[in-house]
Amino acid sequence: MAICCCYLSPTKPFTIPPSIQLSSPKPLLRCNLSLPSKSPITLAEPDPIFTSVKAFAPATVANLGPGFDFLGCAVDGLGDFVSLRVDPHVHPGEISISDISGDNNVKKLSKNPLWNCAGIAAIEVMKLLGIRSVGLSLSLEKGLPLGSGLGSSAASAAAAAVAVNEIFGNKLGVEELVLAALKSEEKVSGYHADNVAPAIMGGFVLIRSYEPLDLIQLKFPSEKNLFFVLVSPDFEAPTKKMRAALPSEIGMPHHVWNCSQAGALVASVLQGDLAGLGKALSSDKIVEPRRAPLIPGMEAVKRVALEAGSFGCTISGAGPTAVAVTDNEERGKEIGKLMVEAFFKEGNLKACAHVKQLDRVGARLISSIRN
Amino acid sequence: MAICCCYLSPTKPFTIPPSIQLSSPKPLLRCNLSLPSKSPITLAEPDPIFTSVKAFAPATVANLGPGFDFLGCAVDGLGDFVSLRVDPHVHPGEISISDISGDNNVKKLSKNPLWNCAGIAAIEVMKLLGIRSVGLSLSLEKGLPLGSGLGSSAASAAAAAVAVNEIFGNKLGVEELVLAALKSEEKVSGYHADNVAPAIMGGFVLIRSYEPLDLIQLKFPSEKNLFFVLVSPDFEAPTKKMRAALPSEIGMPHHVWNCSQAGALVASVLQGDLAGLGKALSSDKIVEPRRAPLIPGMEAVKRVALEAGSFGCTISGAGPTAVAVTDNEERGKEIGKLMVEAFFKEGNLKACAHVKQLDRVGARLISSIRN
Repeated sequence: MAICCCYLSPTKPFTIPPSIQLSSPKPLLRCNLSLPSKSPITLAEPDPIFTSVKAFAPATVANLGPGFDFLGCAVDGLGDFVSLRVDPHVHPGEISISDISGDNNVKKLSKNPLWNCAGIAAIEVMKLLGIRSVGLSLSLEKGLPLGSGLGSSAASAAAAAVAVNEIFGNKLGVEELVLAALKSEEKVSGYHADNVAPAIMGGFVLIRSYEPLDLIQLKFPSEKNLFFVLVSPDFEAPTKKMRAALPSEIGMPHHVWNCSQAGALVASVLQGDLAGLGKALSSDKIVEPRRAPLIPGMEAVKRVALEAGSFGCTISGAGPTAVAVTDNEERGKEIGKLMVEAFFKEGNLKACAHVKQLDRVGARLISSIRN
Repeated sequence: MAICCCYLSPTKPFTIPPSIQLSSPKPLLRCNLSLPSKSPITLAEPDPIFTSVKAFAPATVANLGPGFDFLGCAVDGLGDFVSLRVDPHVHPGEISISDISGDNNVKKLSKNPLWNCAGIAAIEVMKLLGIRSVGLSLSLEKGLPLGSGLGSSAASAAAAAVAVNEIFGNKLGVEELVLAALKSEEKVSGYHADNVAPAIMGGFVLIRSYEPLDLIQLKFPSEKNLFFVLVSPDFEAPTKKMRAALPSEIGMPHHVWNCSQAGALVASVLQGDLAGLGKALSSDKIVEPRRAPLIPGMEAVKRVALEAGSFGCTISGAGPTAVAVTDNEERGKEIGKLMVEAFFKEGNLKACAHVKQLDRVGARLISSIRN
């Protein structure tokens, strides 16, 4: 049975009242953004061009050392799936979440669309498209563990945003999809686009500003290989706690250092300089030194990753996943094995390793059934 | 008459004692750098391949807004010249400064090579080359005003370093020349390579670290035009005072903002995105807001430059020169005229404007006479 929710009352299905869209929209969630000038009222309500779609959105590594809070990249082969279908049993203009699958932790996730990352993003895209005549049913397959530092909530939001956009004929641009997914991030983990932007756009994305939203895609040369060794320990690193560990004030020398490393990181990405990228990744003097001691074994894991020949290593997002980079998949597996061992020996934590390539595409439609 | 100086006494010519070069060199000036492993002792002393050379080094714009203390670029058509000749009247292994020409302010400059930017850099290059058998005479033509924020001292040092290297057959690499010129900067304005590195290398240069020295050349696409509008008011902005104006601690939001703008600046340079470059140039929330009020009229000058259609504007180096960027020389001249007017109206300062292209070459030999 589909569980639905309502804008006005959590016991009723969610509806986007046309009156709300017509003038000075009363936002469901606070929006800091300058929304695109194209408002839903100027669009004719699009018809669905598919009866059902399935979308995928990749895991993301945010921060990347000195890129704290403004840089992230997407990782292929790990991510979340959202299936969406036109559902005559759902009231027109409404959305319901019919199913959430994944590991045991997904039980923590709400099926109330207003409290679910995928649901919030889907609702925002429906609002942007002005959907009033079609009801949708959404099914979420979590491929990413929750709270791992791999952009789990962003992947759900990105997959849902893309799925809704695709089912109605791909009317919205990347920026609008990021805005929609940001509403979801705002509610669950903070107003940061460094996961949702690369989850939607793929590759490396620099968030230049929020007002207005200004994103720079940093193209890593296609002829170069880039593998991420992602080692996730069995440990909870709550984003709130990890954020509270940060200094509120930063001395000028450390500011200049991290700024220059951020510049070097951007240059290394664009120039396809893997050694430079790894060096920059490892260079953070502000955030990582505060967070690493809160993740048992992290400092040893980084040391081992560097000794084993990775180009660089840091914490992925707010952790607890450690991320190292290399240009060779086999070497990546060896490095990952040593990192897992280090988490166990030095942090007394079980961990699992994945070696994955850069995702250059971002959230995408993977299957569809046409009307 | 050549005025010479000595390492041990200012009344005697400067000599590089061979014993000092042979083992654990006793540096003239403190060196924070990891010097290149290739030490002078491993090189046979080179013979001069020219009897005289003339070198040019361009003006430089350091900081570039959020690139504070680690980013700079070179500007063509403005700079300093160093003429150097093998002089049998100068004791072998010594250097003398025979002449300094330029505007009235050059009278402030010492002809003692140990206290002159060009002299210090020339001595360092002679040390690196192990010169013991040839005496040199140096003449400095200052094309740049002193203390203008256009890298005047760096240009003198860069031209001298290149001149000495060229007269002995160009044995040293760019990094060694930067190290030599840095010794000069350390003495006169602080241990920063954001002027000397672009003065020697040309284009945009990011200083990634000092220990060891690690420089990243950022190639601005050759097919793109980039003009700098440089407006220098008749005002003294001592580097010490401008540095004292800086905050010692920076709040996290401003740190993240400036870091992201630094990344955007680097991306804009590499992608040849002039609008993005200008936007980043104008975006500094840490240094410019403290320094601009100390330069009468600067805030109005920036406003005018932006209103007149420049892509961006900030303070060049520690000031007082204002720098704006555009893609068209004629428009640059109009913008420059308006900026000069604004300095006069709002700051009661006379100013002069130059519109110059990016220098992509750096310090270079411009003439030579062979043995």
